[in-house]
Amino acid sequence: MLTGLESFQVQVEVPVQWGDMDAAGHVNNVIYLRWCESARITYFEKIDIDLSFRDGVGPILGWQDCKYIFPMTYPDRALIGIKVEEIREDRFLMLAHIYSQKHERLAIISKQAIVPYDYGQLAKAPIPENWLTNIKAVEGWA
Amino acid sequence: MLTGLESFQVQVEVPVQWGDMDAAGHVNNVIYLRWCESARITYFEKIDIDLSFRDGVGPILGWQDCKYIFPMTYPDRALIGIKVEEIREDRFLMLAHIYSQKHERLAIISKQAIVPYDYGQLAKAPIPENWLTNIKAVEGWA
Amino acid sequence: MLTGLESFQVQVEVPVQWGDMDAAGHVNNVIYLRWCESARITYFEKIDIDLSFRDGVGPILGWQDCKYIFPMTYPDRALIGIKVEEIREDRFLMLAHIYSQKHERLAIISKQAIVPYDYGQLAKAPIPENWLTNIKAVEGWA
Amino acid sequence: MLTGLESFQVQVEVPVQWGDMDAAGHVNNVIYLRWCESARITYFEKIDIDLSFRDGVGPILGWQDCKYIFPMTYPDRALIGIKVEEIREDRFLMLAHIYSQKHERLAIISKQAIVPYDYGQLAKAPIPENWLTNIKAVEGWA
Repeated sequence: MLTGLESFQVQVEVPVQWGDMDAAGHVNNVIYLRWCESARITYFEKIDIDLSFRDGVGPILGWQDCKYIFPMTYPDRALIGIKVEEIREDRFLMLAHIYSQKHERLAIISKQAIVPYDYGQLAKAPIPENWLTNIKAVEGWA
Repeated sequence: MLTGLESFQVQVEVPVQWGDMDAAGHVNNVIYLRWCESARITYFEKIDIDLSFRDGVGPILGWQDCKYIFPMTYPDRALIGIKVEEIREDRFLMLAHIYSQKHERLAIISKQAIVPYDYGQLAKAPIPENWLTNIKAVEGWA
Repeated sequence: MLTGLESFQVQVEVPVQWGDMDAAGHVNNVIYLRWCESARITYFEKIDIDLSFRDGVGPILGWQDCKYIFPMTYPDRALIGIKVEEIREDRFLMLAHIYSQKHERLAIISKQAIVPYDYGQLAKAPIPENWLTNIKAVEGWA
Repeated sequence: MLTGLESFQVQVEVPVQWGDMDAAGHVNNVIYLRWCESARITYFEKIDIDLSFRDGVGPILGWQDCKYIFPMTYPDRALIGIKVEEIREDRFLMLAHIYSQKHERLAIISKQAIVPYDYGQLAKAPIPENWLTNIKAVEGWA
């Protein structure tokens, strides 16, 4: 495993597609956030979050950022690690790292704030207990 | 109106975004089909097709093609015309032209076959009468 | 003009395409950043930045964030305002607001850090003088 | 290997990303053509085609179609096989199949016409001899 990914319990690997590059000849800035989304969804599945987005409490992306460090190009493989870093009253914060497999280098760092939303009540909701339990289990928190 | 678009009763205009270009420096081939989809959906709305994709009879894209004639680049505006050309028993055929506004040139020609699908029965369906009536009204068929 | 956009000297308008929505039925989170990119490129053109990404000094997106406030859906039009907020030694900071035209509501707020890069020297570069002059002219700074 | 893919000497595998789905809850129609592009580029690399799109003779997508057979959803993996089917004087024709790994079913069939283009002369070009030689080698034609 690539150095730097060991601390991530949830990892996803996506091949860079030629069409992911833009006219500047690099992977376009939004593609990295698409990959983060893929890792985030995988994490949500691991902690058994309902992803129907119709009833019950589901996740909403409230905020994200992305620090661009190393520009990836085709061909390569994106190695994405994602974790929960912090839990607040109405949200939890995730951290994602994306590495270039070919260059063995960190390409971007992204943070994301996830807000629970009650699709039945159409209102923000407190973080469900089973989300907390499962996050702690995945992250190995005591 | 651009010569060539007069015969299209339904038209959509979309600005080329810089990020629509790929590493070859032209609008990527899939973007033109995204624009055709936007025109198709506008047409569906005009003929009052249900776009919930959950219950009742909705449209499925069964087939499409695209002939690439003139490569567009940023900055430009895509002018898309779309029409129904032919109605068959289980489908209807659409024709779309996309023009470069800047160059006043035809960029692509796409044909598309639309198949009615009953999302309740999970099976193909005959073309609903109101679709036929509305298509004839839009196209001005006697 | 929509209240809130008056303070932006550079504005871009993009129609929401049906295909911009994801399986949750809202405009996908990366689409807003694609629209910010379109506004950013328009700004770069206004201040006469070289966008060849081959020689000379060009812009690199070093960091961006996005606060998601109101979920947009098709059909709608995205109204994007963008400005330079702050100039630092090796970068300048931009602010973008995206409004839903249909709902007359602020949908997202994004900040972006732009770093000058010398494509000839393959190294970071100081902000070129003409960038500074042109930014001041666009923003109306004394 | 999935039955149906044996006849393809060039194969590419791409994970379905959640964000590849549209508001109808299926992989969007343009995504399959993005995957075909990825397979096509892999083929071009195998036959040593110059992909700089600046000088010399490069490939242009002149036409493509896509027959949609089985709608894919997240999570799944797309298995793409691609081959050259026919060589004509000024173009060659490719065939691509995409299978759903999870359902072991054929999802789409796409044909594509590739036209050689001389980026130095800015004109169509005959198919270079080394392309023909390498296609024959890849396809195992006598």
